[in-house]
Amino acid sequence: MKKTVIFSTFIALSSFASASLVDDAKKAGFTPIPTTMYKLSKIIDNPKNSLNKAKVELGKALFFEPRLSKSNLISCNTCHNLATGGVDGVSSAIGHKWTSNPHHLNSPTVYNAVFMERQFWDGRDPDLEAQAQGPMQAEPEMAISKEMAVKRIASMAGYQEQFNKAFGDNNITFKKIADAIGAFERTLVTPSRFDNFLDGNKTALSLPEQEGLRVFIDKGCTACHTGIGIGGSMQKFPLVKPYKYANIGDFKGDKNGMVKTPTLRNIAQTAPYFHNGAVWSLEEAVKIMGETQLGINLNEKETKSIVTFLKALDGEMPTITYPKLPAVTATTPKPEVD
Amino acid sequence: MKKTVIFSTFIALSSFASASLVDDAKKAGFTPIPTTMYKLSKIIDNPKNSLNKAKVELGKALFFEPRLSKSNLISCNTCHNLATGGVDGVSSAIGHKWTSNPHHLNSPTVYNAVFMERQFWDGRDPDLEAQAQGPMQAEPEMAISKEMAVKRIASMAGYQEQFNKAFGDNNITFKKIADAIGAFERTLVTPSRFDNFLDGNKTALSLPEQEGLRVFIDKGCTACHTGIGIGGSMQKFPLVKPYKYANIGDFKGDKNGMVKTPTLRNIAQTAPYFHNGAVWSLEEAVKIMGETQLGINLNEKETKSIVTFLKALDGEMPTITYPKLPAVTATTPKPEVD
Repeated sequence: MKKTVIFSTFIALSSFASASLVDDAKKAGFTPIPTTMYKLSKIIDNPKNSLNKAKVELGKALFFEPRLSKSNLISCNTCHNLATGGVDGVSSAIGHKWTSNPHHLNSPTVYNAVFMERQFWDGRDPDLEAQAQGPMQAEPEMAISKEMAVKRIASMAGYQEQFNKAFGDNNITFKKIADAIGAFERTLVTPSRFDNFLDGNKTALSLPEQEGLRVFIDKGCTACHTGIGIGGSMQKFPLVKPYKYANIGDFKGDKNGMVKTPTLRNIAQTAPYFHNGAVWSLEEAVKIMGETQLGINLNEKETKSIVTFLKALDGEMPTITYPKLPAVTATTPKPEVD
Repeated sequence: MKKTVIFSTFIALSSFASASLVDDAKKAGFTPIPTTMYKLSKIIDNPKNSLNKAKVELGKALFFEPRLSKSNLISCNTCHNLATGGVDGVSSAIGHKWTSNPHHLNSPTVYNAVFMERQFWDGRDPDLEAQAQGPMQAEPEMAISKEMAVKRIASMAGYQEQFNKAFGDNNITFKKIADAIGAFERTLVTPSRFDNFLDGNKTALSLPEQEGLRVFIDKGCTACHTGIGIGGSMQKFPLVKPYKYANIGDFKGDKNGMVKTPTLRNIAQTAPYFHNGAVWSLEEAVKIMGETQLGINLNEKETKSIVTFLKALDGEMPTITYPKLPAVTATTPKPEVD
């Protein structure tokens, strides 16, 4: 009898704790990824590039299309590998002719990038469609000109029809290529147990994960890492104390020293961390954030607890059928590897 | 009435021609890819590395696994891209640190490679399992040591369990990594309309394609390009006349000047052609083969007719679900990009 009473009390307390934790999480700005496609589509759609099935399918092909690089060897997926958390697993992106990113910048994940308020570490682009135009053309990345990108794609049988279905005409332009890629990327969202928890399923997070969420909120991490993206806004970095690896690369943020807050969704999948990929340990990254942004020293227990919560942000990656891309033709511009 | 008679005569003649063409094709050594999994498995299985579902699934993950390269950036799929005919679309393979293949060798397709009698252009390896060990370790390709490959894979959660399911124990070795990749590659076969034709479906090939097959047989192309692989044996190259692009790279075949005959399955998808990837046009490649191997000048009509047949060798690529690979851990050896 006594055991039962204790057990019931524990259940009641933990339910109560969870209920209030959900409320507190919502007050801290978290919003779940909607579970219905109807509600989700309202969030991920871009009125200037409305989603349709044909466009997303074309965008997937183009996302994996190595002929969109000067060399024929690099696709969007090279640095934003959908098999490995949407990143490349190196500190600084490597592109055409094995060139390191000149500012030693780490490739951010493409998963849930649709939820970011701005794109690129310095936030210079407003959306995924604008972003997609950059790396294709950048000399140290895919290094292709707009003209060659269009010539390559237009020369391959099948693409015209796909553009026709996606955009209502088969006039292939560089903007449409980027728009299709952006449309595909908008679908790369990964609902997690945390979303389920925010939706009111109190057992979706374990008690240690709930404790971690509590620490995360109480310490103030939600000042930046909140919303549906659990990040994505432009913030001053470093804010309180210097970033100890600031000497790696020359990135200083935008003209006001603002840096885009990375999403914490799937953060356990996307090492190394920070704009310059200097840190491989999630524990160390959490501690550094405490110092640079909040001016606090998170002790080992707090750090581990937060990391336990962060791992619950691992989401369900969409299942992707690897595309079958068309063959080059006599008119396809040849690769240039040198 | 007259029309009907003519039409019936045409049908009769073309059926007759087809029937004899199927016989002649079989006499020339062609054998179709079996349509039943039972019969196919007898051909593609390796008694020393018997296929099972778990091994093929693991092999797929490892085929797409960039952490099997020193840099974290190159997977088997980089040079044998399953989206683009199983090849990379460049003349000479590019690997670690953007190094060109030192002998200027072109990456052969991995599709239907199981049907090749030997692996590599010089035929130095007997099967896919042996072949898979090479590029992972080669400095100009994936540049990883056996030890680092094993450490990387063994450090990531999930792989142990997959090896256990695939091999009956979770002791991860370099040989098992290659064996799993080989097992996956064995499944990459692409049945085509030509196989259907060989199976007796006379309308599976159009009349122009049948004419092309007739020219292909009559001119003697089947001396080397036959069997289930439509290629795959070691042959003297060049045989009769010099290869006009021999000055590109220093490859001379094995010690006897023998070179592995490439498969012609999906040949329209796998430009550029020849061991040194010197030729982009399939027409030109066919003409060159006539010269170097048969000592004949194929005229334009014959060349086009053969190419029409070759395009009927485009097969049905297997549908591949892009893998979701495990995250690195604290013990995973870091990438080395320099």
